[in-house]
Amino acid sequence: MSFFFLDEYEDMEAYIPGEQPKDRQYIKLNANESSFPPSPKVLEAVNQSQINGMGHYSDPHCMELRAAIGEVYGFGADQVFVGNGADEVLGFCMMSFFREGMKVCFPDITYDFYRTYAKTYHLDYEQIPLKDDLSIDVEDYINTDKDVILANPNNPTGKDISVADIERIVKKDPKRMVIIDEAYVDYGNESCVPLVRKYPNLVVIQTFSKSRNMAGARIGYAISSKEIIEDMNKIKFTFNPFNMSSLAITAGTAAVKDTEYLKKCVTTTIETRKYFEKEVENLGFFVFPTTTNFAFIKHPTLDAGKITKELKDRGILVRHYQNERISAYLRVTIGSREEMQQVIKELKDIVESALCVC
Amino acid sequence: MSFFFLDEYEDMEAYIPGEQPKDRQYIKLNANESSFPPSPKVLEAVNQSQINGMGHYSDPHCMELRAAIGEVYGFGADQVFVGNGADEVLGFCMMSFFREGMKVCFPDITYDFYRTYAKTYHLDYEQIPLKDDLSIDVEDYINTDKDVILANPNNPTGKDISVADIERIVKKDPKRMVIIDEAYVDYGNESCVPLVRKYPNLVVIQTFSKSRNMAGARIGYAISSKEIIEDMNKIKFTFNPFNMSSLAITAGTAAVKDTEYLKKCVTTTIETRKYFEKEVENLGFFVFPTTTNFAFIKHPTLDAGKITKELKDRGILVRHYQNERISAYLRVTIGSREEMQQVIKELKDIVESALCVC
Repeated sequence: MSFFFLDEYEDMEAYIPGEQPKDRQYIKLNANESSFPPSPKVLEAVNQSQINGMGHYSDPHCMELRAAIGEVYGFGADQVFVGNGADEVLGFCMMSFFREGMKVCFPDITYDFYRTYAKTYHLDYEQIPLKDDLSIDVEDYINTDKDVILANPNNPTGKDISVADIERIVKKDPKRMVIIDEAYVDYGNESCVPLVRKYPNLVVIQTFSKSRNMAGARIGYAISSKEIIEDMNKIKFTFNPFNMSSLAITAGTAAVKDTEYLKKCVTTTIETRKYFEKEVENLGFFVFPTTTNFAFIKHPTLDAGKITKELKDRGILVRHYQNERISAYLRVTIGSREEMQQVIKELKDIVESALCVC
Repeated sequence: MSFFFLDEYEDMEAYIPGEQPKDRQYIKLNANESSFPPSPKVLEAVNQSQINGMGHYSDPHCMELRAAIGEVYGFGADQVFVGNGADEVLGFCMMSFFREGMKVCFPDITYDFYRTYAKTYHLDYEQIPLKDDLSIDVEDYINTDKDVILANPNNPTGKDISVADIERIVKKDPKRMVIIDEAYVDYGNESCVPLVRKYPNLVVIQTFSKSRNMAGARIGYAISSKEIIEDMNKIKFTFNPFNMSSLAITAGTAAVKDTEYLKKCVTTTIETRKYFEKEVENLGFFVFPTTTNFAFIKHPTLDAGKITKELKDRGILVRHYQNERISAYLRVTIGSREEMQQVIKELKDIVESALCVC
């Protein structure tokens, strides 16, 4: 720590991303990345002329990308904010609307980044425990006086809340901001984006990192009221006016228009998840029901930490959490059919070796 | 403004980037962009396999790019911070080390973004007037008790300070942070990066947007002590852990290694600037001496705002500032030889039409 670091950051807790070890080639199923390449339209769009044109600044208003995203949902560009990944979008949202001491709540088990931000910037945050079945008690979020952040479906459980329940939370108090992070919504869930038309206190955040197969491109967006989007853009202009590169704007625009490809990738991922879940059930695992690009599973007797380590030794990375309420679980991203066959093969071997009375 | 926007932002003043009108094709000389394409190595590096690999997250530590930049200056990756443009780098620097009420100073005439940030986030900032000749009085920055931000060479004047003078500012008080923004340093100026070895209170910020011809790629970096870089990375991880895209990391790494191409582009730009300056002197303009990729010029009688408008009508964008101390000047980016010939032709016509006693 330098002499200059602000002392209010002393008790900060850095967000820890899924590991990216480089010691060998891994089947990487620990960060809910996609095994598909981006849409072929992206490859067409990011061409020689695009790259050679990088001498000029990108559009600080990112209008092309915002208009293309808006069109998918029937909104104008003025209701879309874009950033370098959903994290940056969330970051600018927090910077615009939350200061030290302001009240916000989110589940005790959810995407870690919410707590990282809230703790570092000294929000008055409450982590509301999930129910014993790891689902969210909607009444908790209807009856709170705090602003709300919810991942829907939740991560790492994959458990979703209905749009009707989201609406009950949002409509309860128009002075309370409700941020819904829909990173995994495309995998068979209903989006609450249409509620934005009725409720100016709703901010919906989505990402290109999952169903659009572009985690490395760093593109996320928020859809909300014109006023909220305008505020977020104002703050962006005080921090990094030209936040998105010209390549990201071009790649994102090409990707978001290719809805056919999105459907194809999502359908295949869901099929592969169902296949994987059935196979691991046959190995004795309990499968937590999800509608995402990952499976959330636990074995009745084997230690999840040990399985994670065994899989890593065999060249497969999955995610295991220390939090004791979910420490029995593994979160396994759904990769390609071949990758999942390999995982099943190794899991079978691990289970049989452990349970064998040799 | 939404109901939710924090009231402390009420008197904020948004940074206004150089205009990017789309009504026709312009010769765009208003944002100090480069007329060169990025290094051919960038085109090689950003290939099909790179684009198809975007399903996976980029390295949140950006080690490849940080190491490549560090190598140019003889530093390890742990003394390099990278961000989406120098603005984001400055933004994370301010967020890490400056809170409301902290004292900072910078010239009254400089890159607008410093004031935008300082005003929005309520720093106790002082804008120290340049001397009458538009140069910086180094004593002002040696004898202040405030932290210091200086663009060197300054923008939009192009006036530089010697490294010896920078050292006097930095060494005066190790408890005072000195941030030197070297966006234009490669165009014939000496960098103060070597001072980082001696002074842990120095942060030097550079960019790929000028001499590396990659404004659209959004890549900037800071070189400083290990402790300062570590602090900035910690804060980055609370706001946007995966800030740089995989394409930006790859493109930046390829570009920074191609020092031959950098030299070639810089040499050509300097030659073209000298050519342009000589030609406009012949038209009666005063040329403020700069070592940058732009010329800062004024006509003894003609109004700079009117010339700017006339040039725009003729398809050429240059930058004119309202600030009355420099409102007689035009800042003209040095484009290609052909572009500058066109500017000279139009300026000649504008001057002759205005001065003609018809």
